[in-house]
Amino acid sequence: MSSYAIGIDLGGTNIKAGLVNKNGKIQSRLSIKTNYNADPQIISNQIFGLIEEFINSANSTTAEVGGGLKPPPISIVGIGLGSPGLIDEKGETIIFSPNLPKWRNIPIKRMVTERFSMPCVLENDANAAAWGEKWAGAGKEASSMVMLTLGTGIGGGIVIDNKLWRGANNVAGEIGHMVIQMDGPPCSCGNYGCFEAFASATAMVRRFKELLKSGTSSSLKDSGEITAKAINDAAFQGDRASLDIIKETGQYLGIALVNIMHVLNPEVIVLTGGMIGSGELLMNPIKEVISQRAFEASYKDTKIVFSKLGNDAGIIGAAGCLLKELGISV
Amino acid sequence: MSSYAIGIDLGGTNIKAGLVNKNGKIQSRLSIKTNYNADPQIISNQIFGLIEEFINSANSTTAEVGGGLKPPPISIVGIGLGSPGLIDEKGETIIFSPNLPKWRNIPIKRMVTERFSMPCVLENDANAAAWGEKWAGAGKEASSMVMLTLGTGIGGGIVIDNKLWRGANNVAGEIGHMVIQMDGPPCSCGNYGCFEAFASATAMVRRFKELLKSGTSSSLKDSGEITAKAINDAAFQGDRASLDIIKETGQYLGIALVNIMHVLNPEVIVLTGGMIGSGELLMNPIKEVISQRAFEASYKDTKIVFSKLGNDAGIIGAAGCLLKELGISV
Repeated sequence: MSSYAIGIDLGGTNIKAGLVNKNGKIQSRLSIKTNYNADPQIISNQIFGLIEEFINSANSTTAEVGGGLKPPPISIVGIGLGSPGLIDEKGETIIFSPNLPKWRNIPIKRMVTERFSMPCVLENDANAAAWGEKWAGAGKEASSMVMLTLGTGIGGGIVIDNKLWRGANNVAGEIGHMVIQMDGPPCSCGNYGCFEAFASATAMVRRFKELLKSGTSSSLKDSGEITAKAINDAAFQGDRASLDIIKETGQYLGIALVNIMHVLNPEVIVLTGGMIGSGELLMNPIKEVISQRAFEASYKDTKIVFSKLGNDAGIIGAAGCLLKELGISV
Repeated sequence: MSSYAIGIDLGGTNIKAGLVNKNGKIQSRLSIKTNYNADPQIISNQIFGLIEEFINSANSTTAEVGGGLKPPPISIVGIGLGSPGLIDEKGETIIFSPNLPKWRNIPIKRMVTERFSMPCVLENDANAAAWGEKWAGAGKEASSMVMLTLGTGIGGGIVIDNKLWRGANNVAGEIGHMVIQMDGPPCSCGNYGCFEAFASATAMVRRFKELLKSGTSSSLKDSGEITAKAINDAAFQGDRASLDIIKETGQYLGIALVNIMHVLNPEVIVLTGGMIGSGELLMNPIKEVISQRAFEASYKDTKIVFSKLGNDAGIIGAAGCLLKELGISV
């Protein structure tokens, strides 16, 4: 009998789920569109529905008896749930989630456990994704890892000594809100000069528009519809302004990575999120800044790599957190 | 029989040592002046001499027999050595120490172990001091702690989950070299805008002199002999310029502490080193900046405190690292 965990990645537009084996491979997937503004009860029923579907499917697989080859029976041992937002210190309740504004103080762990009589682990989504990369992805060989998710905002997850480091109040890893220019531009968080205010997709688009306003020519026009993806595509077409802005973004990322190396000296830094589509255009300036600004002892053995699991990291990591808690995986 | 460890704090001008009990109290002390430029052999002989003196004293105490009250026999179980500079990943060799320029690749752990047939632990001095505060000082109740040593430079030590976090290459905790203003002034490390380049004693003196040059009046004159101590003393006498520059230093410290809280979310941040003599003059602006710039969830439960052990943290912590390794203390 093989042990599997259900991993769920709770987003504001989709709930994605997977049946994950103890080696971190997704065996089957389900996904459902959700309305970020729906009542908690509707969304939790959607979550329950996905879990039921996996359980029913596993039972019917196991019940199939006949003369031919039988697939190995599947034992679902529990549910790992990754959620955006703030989770209480005990890992039981979603206190608040910016993507799901009506979710306030929802004791989702207990709700799942009681309904399915199975263990459930609730983890912040950035932590879950970081654990996925550590367990089965780009950080597999490392005992210490920092992961940065580069998207609309910049999220972070920290693995120290083969364990997620969640902090004293479950809020460690807010690496996007590390100040790198104390008199810098305002950040959405209310602070100034946060790394996120320079290097997120949002910040890159803002800087690009400023560049256009200052008269720089580009194949992209300021139609108000400029996105990080469009900048990336234009850069690959050779657009100078787009190339420059991605390079600058990489330089800002380099500064943040210098800080991470000096403070934490991790074995691996994993970059993920939509912006890593720029590939070497982003990675080269990162590495250049690090070689100029970091202590050699801090960076010489630190690998800087892109995610291996991509969008699956959240599902795999949530399941992995559950399997780790049960002692089934490392 | 009580178990004791010898803790040694290796400095460029003094080697300080103490016999430390398993509760982190110094039972007796020794200290010897050293010449930072002396040959490694001379300095290591000085270290050996201190260790021998403790051992002989313990033996003679134990050997004293008579009719009266006998002091409890002392068992020295090993030696903890805190050293500035870069220590190899195995914790055996001092690769390089800025305070002891002739020390290059000295396998001091093996030298001590072989000579005294006792276990020895070699630890970076900032880490040793941080462990001292965690074990027996201001971080005693916490399972996670960051310590900053505010002096000529800014050193750091990190405790995560009740253990020192040394990093993948033994160089974590270089918190003074976290960039807080990427286009800031040059730092001694070759980078720009490091926290140390704003908030160390050296940086405070530099900024104070700039203030005087710009025409600000002060009871301190720019005689080239302005020190952080003199600025502190003048501030306590009400000197406006000195008060302002200490306040500004606290504000820079506040930015760095915001970053530490957002990245690591530790239970306690301990400040130590010469500059904490400014007391509330330094602490008030730190806390003000944090309340303005940090997430409430990140700082609400984090204590920011001054060191309890002061200059003894290095001795106590070095001994504590040894006792922890032997499983005698937590």
